[in-house]
Order: sequence, then structure tokens, then C-alpha cells
Amino acid sequence: MTPGGYYEPPKPPASEPPPEWLKGEGEASDVVLSSRVRLARNLAGVPFSPKSGPKDRARSLELCRDQILLAGLASRIVWEDLHEATPIKRALLVERHVISKQLSKGRGGADEPRGVAYSVPDERLAIMVNEEDHLRIQAIRSGLALSAAYAEVDRADDLIEAGLDYAFSRRFGYLTACPTNVGTGVRMSVMLHLPALRLTGDIEKVKRAADGLCLAVRGFYGEGSEAVGDLYQLSNQTTLGKTEQEILSLLETDILPRIVEYERVARRELLTKRRTLLEDQAFRAWGLLNNARLLTTEEAMQMLSMARLGSICEILPVDSKTINSLFLLVQPAHLQRVMRTELDQEQRRSARATYVRSRLARG
Amino acid sequence: MTPGGYYEPPKPPASEPPPEWLKGEGEASDVVLSSRVRLARNLAGVPFSPKSGPKDRARSLELCRDQILLAGLASRIVWEDLHEATPIKRALLVERHVISKQLSKGRGGADEPRGVAYSVPDERLAIMVNEEDHLRIQAIRSGLALSAAYAEVDRADDLIEAGLDYAFSRRFGYLTACPTNVGTGVRMSVMLHLPALRLTGDIEKVKRAADGLCLAVRGFYGEGSEAVGDLYQLSNQTTLGKTEQEILSLLETDILPRIVEYERVARRELLTKRRTLLEDQAFRAWGLLNNARLLTTEEAMQMLSMARLGSICEILPVDSKTINSLFLLVQPAHLQRVMRTELDQEQRRSARATYVRSRLARG
Repeated sequence: MTPGGYYEPPKPPASEPPPEWLKGEGEASDVVLSSRVRLARNLAGVPFSPKSGPKDRARSLELCRDQILLAGLASRIVWEDLHEATPIKRALLVERHVISKQLSKGRGGADEPRGVAYSVPDERLAIMVNEEDHLRIQAIRSGLALSAAYAEVDRADDLIEAGLDYAFSRRFGYLTACPTNVGTGVRMSVMLHLPALRLTGDIEKVKRAADGLCLAVRGFYGEGSEAVGDLYQLSNQTTLGKTEQEILSLLETDILPRIVEYERVARRELLTKRRTLLEDQAFRAWGLLNNARLLTTEEAMQMLSMARLGSICEILPVDSKTINSLFLLVQPAHLQRVMRTELDQEQRRSARATYVRSRLARG
Repeated sequence: MTPGGYYEPPKPPASEPPPEWLKGEGEASDVVLSSRVRLARNLAGVPFSPKSGPKDRARSLELCRDQILLAGLASRIVWEDLHEATPIKRALLVERHVISKQLSKGRGGADEPRGVAYSVPDERLAIMVNEEDHLRIQAIRSGLALSAAYAEVDRADDLIEAGLDYAFSRRFGYLTACPTNVGTGVRMSVMLHLPALRLTGDIEKVKRAADGLCLAVRGFYGEGSEAVGDLYQLSNQTTLGKTEQEILSLLETDILPRIVEYERVARRELLTKRRTLLEDQAFRAWGLLNNARLLTTEEAMQMLSMARLGSICEILPVDSKTINSLFLLVQPAHLQRVMRTELDQEQRRSARATYVRSRLARG
């Protein structure tokens, strides 16, 4: 400890490798950070989560886990019993988008039987058990790749279904705990980085247009989370009355290319018509990231957003992949992991600033 | 012009030399930027400003100017007819604290006969003619030096009075246009830099204490101006019923040493007990000053304030005298002077950022 009572962090170790979806590769990766498809599935003959007791949950966990581990979903797959995991382990999985905040907490508390299987080291495929539904199967990819992600969950779904009896209605399709998921049970979403549209103020038009198309706009950590770092999660709201292919085609062929182009046009206009404003925003962020001694997660994300824009517009001397990985590494649990120690909130603000400076200095 | 429509400033020339009061020398200059004493005097037999017509003003201007230039006030003295000066020349004199905003404007408009005499190159002595009073005699020094400043105005007052008939009442003392100046006609003020007290929140206590002592607390540009850059002008309110020596002694021996010590204690406490907070504030300011591409005067002043604190606390690699001169050089008129061209507000924000970066890079 320094005389001032602040935690003096050790030299930061090499960073955690980011999951594949944060690698900044693939189609339209200047705007689309990642694409994610998840399916909601439930077992026939076992009460759904709102009506289930402890024995029911233990049973759905066992049935699902056994089948997932037998199904040959990926060359390497890891199972995590979340009721036995440490809080920091659960937080790491949330930050990496392997599990939801809801699954991390547990609907009935931390002891609630629940778990997750995920492919390593890529973390492209993850299957949550005893979230709101018995099964939540998700695939996540870098860039605009909803078709590929859908193909992956579809395949995983077939392999899992081969050994389990799903709750299915001829009339409604797949049955789910919440009626908003009934039907295909599919939710397709993309994580968009829209800093230029925020700077020009046109982001509100995108939100209104998304509303009109029955698409949900959420923050970096999904439902109920604020948009920080100009990162917006866009996803389909309706699962009933449309096939998976229709939803996929609407998003991937129709809507997303237009939003991507809208952001790119805004970036080009900033570069040509309001270059000083753009440079000001990018260099201010760069100055703060390289100088601040205390950083909250939120401020770090916002500054990283402007630095990513500055990188893509070739204003700042930094690789946008470095920024992508920092979006993850400034999160509380990851920060404690790279610092190899538990830190309170005050210590994290100091350690976060130190880590960001050292990471950017490495280039 | 760049394609974005922003003004691209030329390489900045060597900076304007700051007036002596900004040199950051003298007693307690870590806290007291400057000390200023001014006397309000009026001519007997010529109507005071609220009741004067154009002929009266021309007459008071002529009488005062002739005597000021004959009195041998300083080895070199410059006279400026302000009704003939360009707006930028007047703005430069305001920014250098040689004249007040009120005199710059002119009570009856820009053509109002009025002027100023000031010693060069030090600008320690200035005599405004046809401000609120016929004569406003001021002396201004670096650091805590009210006695020296008072001695200088007192001497100038004697030399001017030798050739003019002052309005004086045996009962009230010197008569002035506004009753708040009647009596000694003296106003003594200091410009304090109190960044640590602002950071600890104790600045409000100083303001309340000053109120209780009938002292006025104002901003960098006096009456009606906001405190920017943590710079506070503290001055006596009452001029009646106290001798000049009593006011001087109250301020210089009693009140100011206590405020100076209060700020120094706050700085030491920040350094020892909240060092990371202090470093964070200083380095953030440093990062912004060295990276921003657009700076308003107000933000520049605030960042310079933190940089000055960082310099004095030996956190930042910058001389506090460089910061002192930047307090002046970021002001609109000075900025246009060093850039050698007229700039609109938008262009100034860009030129200011460019100039600050180049000035800090020179060290």
C-alpha cells in the first residue's frame, strides 16, 4: 500500500487471451463486433423454471449435462457447475458473454443447481443449463456472421435433441418459460460499435428505426444494461410466426448492412467535414487512457470507444484489436484476473488505469 | 482552411512576454499569483461620471492625461486613447489586467473619451482615466506584495495630486462616483490559486469566512466574473472608517497568511493521504492539454490550474511559470496576437489547443 492508502498494483502480466468473438475479424468488423444466436429449449416432463422445485432443477441439470457432454458438440468442451463456482469465476464468464448475469446469480440464489458447457479455447459455443429455460444454446462469432452462428447452434441443437425429449407443440413450436421466446426459441443479436452515429446524434434515428422493426436495442451486457462505450446489442424481439431463416434474412441481408453503411457514412463525414472534432475526441480519449491514474469501467469503455474509432480512422497509433481486448480486460473480474489478486472498487480504479497505460505502451 | 472547414494555424511564434505580475515570483507565489492595489480619485469642479456630459468627459480626460504624462510616474510610460484603440487592443489590455472590462467598453459606448497610462515593459503601474471615477490608479505585483503595491500607488497618487485638485471631503475623505469607494478610495486585492481547497471541498469554507470578514471573492476578471482555473480574487469591500494601513495590515498580516497556509496544508494532505487522486487530476489535465484538438478558454484554464498544482507538487514535468504565462496566452485576444491573425470562436478553439500543445512541448 502507498502512504495514500491506494493499492499499488504489481507489473501487469501478459493479458488473458480474449474469446474469439472479440478478435475483430470477419465481415464488417469495423462496425459489427460480434454476432450471436441462441436457442431456448426445455425438457418435456420436467417443470419449467417458474414452477420447478429443487428436485426438478437437479433433475434437469443432470439430464442436460449428461447429454451435452456425450453429444460430441466440439473437440474440447468444458463443464462448469455454477453453484460450486467462485463469484469471480462466474463474473469472468459473464464478462466473456459465456453466461448471462441471470444464470450467474441463480434464480433461487447462489446454491441453485445450474451450469454451463462451453467450447475451449474459442468459446464459440456455450450451453447454459437451468437459466430461464432448461437449455440455452448459444454460438457467438466475430464480425457479422449470424448465418455461421445459426448453423452452429442448429447443429448443436440436433446433437443435443438426439438424446433428450424437448417440450414442443405442433401449434406453437418450442415451448419456453417466457412466452416471448415461444416458437423458434431463437434470438439473434449483433454487438454494434456506433461511435460516429453517437457523435453526429443520428444514433437516436437508429434506435427509433429498430423500434419500428420490433428489434430490441440493449447495452454491452444485454437485457437491462446501459449502452456504454457506444456498444449496442441489436436483437429480434419476436420468435413466433417467423421461421429462423426469415429472421436471419431480415437481419443479415436487410437491416444490418444498412446500419453498417449508416455508421460508415457517418465516419467518413466526420473525417472529411468535421475532422478536427473527430481528432479532438480521439486524442482526448488517447490522452486520458495514457494519463489517468483512476478509471471507472464506464469511463474506460467510453474512452476505448473513441480510441477504437480513432484507430479505425487511422488517427491514433493503436491497433483496434488491442482496443477490443481492452473492452474485456477493463471489466472488474478480468482486471482482477490479470492483476492476480482481489481488489476492492477503489483499488480497481487505480489498477485499471495502470493496466490500460501499460497495455497501450506495449502497443 | 482544412477540408473540414477548420482553421489550420501557422507555427506559433515565440510567446508574448507576460506582464510582471504573472511571473510567479515573490512571497507565497505558490498560492498568491498577484497583489493589486487601486485608488479611486476624482477631480473637484468636474461632474462625476454618472452626471457628466461629453464635454465634461473630454475635459477630465485632458486634465488627467496631461498631469499623468508630466508627473514622472515611471521611467517609461505609455498612453493609450481607448476611444481610438482597436477592439483587439482593448481586449489585450483587459486580459493583461491593465484596464477593466468596464473601461474597455466605455460607459457611453466605444467612442466615449477615455484612456489609460501604464508603465512598460513591467506594466506594474496603470492609471485609468474616465472609468467609473475620473482616475483609477493601480499597482500590481507578483506574489503577496500588497505593501509594495500600496507604496507604489501612494507615490503615484502624490505625484498626480501635485498638479490636480482632487474632490475631497474633510468628513468623508476622497469622494467617488459610487459610495462603496468613498473614504480611502482604496481597493486591495490578491489573485489566489486555490486548487487543493477546491479538490478537498474546503473552498466553500474560505468563501464563507471571507464573507464574514466583509471581503469580496471574485473570479479572474474581477466583478461579475466566474472563478475559472481555481483563481479567486479576494478584496476589501469597505473603504470608509478604516485607514489604508488598517486594511493593509488586516489583509497582509492577518487574513492572507492564514489562507495561504490553509491551501498549503490541503496540498500536503493531498500529496500524503490522497496522492493517487492528486496524480489522477494532474495527469488527466496533462493528457488533455497535450492531446485535445479543441479547447475553450474555460476548459484550458481549468486544466492549466490542475497542471500548475501538479507542477508545484512536483508530479508533472512542467515549470509553473510556463503555466502562469499560459493562463494569459489562452485568452482570446492574446491567442490571436500570438497567432498573428483574427480568428472566430471556432477557429480559436482549434488554435488554442494547437498553441498549448506546442508551448508545452517547448517546455
